[in-house]
Amino acid sequence: MLRVLKFGGTSVGTLERINGVAQIIKKFRDAGDDIVAVVSAMSGETNKLIEYANNFSQTPNEIEMDMLLSSGERVTSALLSIALNELGLQATSMSGREAGIVTTSQHTNARIEDINTSNMKDAISNGKIIIVAGFQGVSANNARVTTLGRGGSDLTAVALAGALKADICEIYTDVDGIYTTDPRIEPKAKKLEKISYDEMLELASLGAKVLQNRSVEMAKKLNVNLVSRSSFTPEVEGTLITKEENIMEAPVVSGIALDRNQIRVGMYGVIDKPGIASAIFTALADADINVDMIVQTRGLDNTTNLDFTVPTVDIEKTKTTMIAFEDDSEKIDYNDAICKVSIVGVGMKSHTGVASKAFTAMAKDNININIISTSEIKISMIIDEKYAELAVRSLHEIYELDK
Amino acid sequence: MLRVLKFGGTSVGTLERINGVAQIIKKFRDAGDDIVAVVSAMSGETNKLIEYANNFSQTPNEIEMDMLLSSGERVTSALLSIALNELGLQATSMSGREAGIVTTSQHTNARIEDINTSNMKDAISNGKIIIVAGFQGVSANNARVTTLGRGGSDLTAVALAGALKADICEIYTDVDGIYTTDPRIEPKAKKLEKISYDEMLELASLGAKVLQNRSVEMAKKLNVNLVSRSSFTPEVEGTLITKEENIMEAPVVSGIALDRNQIRVGMYGVIDKPGIASAIFTALADADINVDMIVQTRGLDNTTNLDFTVPTVDIEKTKTTMIAFEDDSEKIDYNDAICKVSIVGVGMKSHTGVASKAFTAMAKDNININIISTSEIKISMIIDEKYAELAVRSLHEIYELDK
Repeated sequence: MLRVLKFGGTSVGTLERINGVAQIIKKFRDAGDDIVAVVSAMSGETNKLIEYANNFSQTPNEIEMDMLLSSGERVTSALLSIALNELGLQATSMSGREAGIVTTSQHTNARIEDINTSNMKDAISNGKIIIVAGFQGVSANNARVTTLGRGGSDLTAVALAGALKADICEIYTDVDGIYTTDPRIEPKAKKLEKISYDEMLELASLGAKVLQNRSVEMAKKLNVNLVSRSSFTPEVEGTLITKEENIMEAPVVSGIALDRNQIRVGMYGVIDKPGIASAIFTALADADINVDMIVQTRGLDNTTNLDFTVPTVDIEKTKTTMIAFEDDSEKIDYNDAICKVSIVGVGMKSHTGVASKAFTAMAKDNININIISTSEIKISMIIDEKYAELAVRSLHEIYELDK
Repeated sequence: MLRVLKFGGTSVGTLERINGVAQIIKKFRDAGDDIVAVVSAMSGETNKLIEYANNFSQTPNEIEMDMLLSSGERVTSALLSIALNELGLQATSMSGREAGIVTTSQHTNARIEDINTSNMKDAISNGKIIIVAGFQGVSANNARVTTLGRGGSDLTAVALAGALKADICEIYTDVDGIYTTDPRIEPKAKKLEKISYDEMLELASLGAKVLQNRSVEMAKKLNVNLVSRSSFTPEVEGTLITKEENIMEAPVVSGIALDRNQIRVGMYGVIDKPGIASAIFTALADADINVDMIVQTRGLDNTTNLDFTVPTVDIEKTKTTMIAFEDDSEKIDYNDAICKVSIVGVGMKSHTGVASKAFTAMAKDNININIISTSEIKISMIIDEKYAELAVRSLHEIYELDK
């Protein structure tokens, strides 16, 4: 079978760990698998290079940033190849260019456009283990090095797995899979064996350290079986992220996610004239602000209250955008002492009463729900941040996720 | 005019120094010159990467070593480009591949075979300053990254200067030129304004820190005007290394070189049979030992004494090789307490009495000369190492090099 393995910065963070990674690869190889491994830069390297660049310029030329930042992954790919050769295995490094990864020319944030697999296929059929420098490609129009932005090495792995029709794409980090909730909040959290792409996307905050949504979306599109597992405990199986059809007997609820990085914007006494909501949310979208939850309630007089949440990082942009709407309401306030708790599960589609269970749990603990929004496979609630851990634990218990 | 500038590891050793290099480039640019700068890795980086590799293997795969080591120069080229862009100049980095440098496939020690200048010429005519990652190219047969071995960045600069028909190729280090002798030995040593390629080659030990013979040889072959100067004192002019014809009124003696890294091998009472010398030196050549000076003297009986020198680093190889000849002489000994002092100057060709002046100086100081060898532009003497500094100072004075 053909395995695409991806090792993140922490997994290759020291020479000792690179040796550990070589052992993981050797084990698969000895079992007869073909292997393409994608590696990140050693942890800390990319940040060091960014610091170097910022020493010269706060807005360094992006083409040059790509030349600069792509070097870290090249180093790791060569070192891992050397380690594998020393173990008696035939390994070859490949830069993004050599792996045939063609991208758009949006430097520092390029998208993969095409993968020319011939070089890799030749190497595989010559019995080579391929170590690809992740996070990078070469632009279609000027043949310069590009990088893929955050999570770019994961993306490289998923894209290669798709192009090579690999049997599996394993993403190695220092976390051994996806849990029903954050184990630091709820020690009874359990590792999931399998989860669907859509659930994974909704549970992003649980897996944020592990998998970027961009990679999960690409895995879903290319139908790549993704595994999240740890290079520190390679004997542990990890979590398979796959098509819903591949999951027999999906549980009603798969996990509880917590997102503390939201701000609630409250507009009170909005003059209820047609088009006001549209004008506000168009302005926010134009400012590239990702509005998450929206709720509108009618007051006693002819005004409404409008609440919505935006990412904490966008607070200043949001305030600037909202200046234009100050005359449309009595008051606008911003509350960052809130959080979003989400219950996720594909099983919800075919089960009733899932939401009411959540509200019951919140009521029992006297937790006031500010905003509720639901989708086919998710129920999200905005609550006061001080109740965050309590809410997660209560929900984890009421849906019996520790069982 | 088109300038090729090369900045070594010390010249780009810190972010501050990279900024200094950017200022040097800006000054030339502001004066209207076209510029191709070749950069080394930041000092210490290459050694760090070699250490990393040796942590995995004492004989790391050479293809992977090239992938690994070529990254340091890429980093510097990107950083310098960023610094230049910040100064409002249009700069672009180029890897060896992008600069069109095609090499043999002897990884870690490749030779430049061809330079495809089209990419560089396009960039120059578009008004760009080009910053080339030195020390690297791409192999003609498999298109993988190669490195050029020791002094590879100098070689890159000279080869690019030749291919682009640059007006000048300036090699920047932390030394501001070539001196009549080592100023640490003779404080009266003077910086040379001009020197011929051949003199430079013979004075290698004076310029070893500054210029590798391999680069001087290529400069001679490609007729590149080479300048040795310092990035720390860019206002100082440096030394021009050029064709003999370009040097009017060459001095009789240009400099005094000292080489402490020689061992004298003495064979006493060699049975004088035909072919014995040939057999010895063929064996040494086959062992890749670079024999420097040879002298044979006839004794009173039918035997001869044979003395020759080899580089200190080759002592073990030499001893191993000489085992086969133990029966051909009464005794073989090895003396590392010797040194070679050389007087170099193209003017010697047309002047008599240069050598006798040297012998007079040695005699005056009671320095015994072990071996003498002369060429058209050089007189070399092996003397006891303890007289090294004294001999250099005496010769420097007798040829009036401080004037």
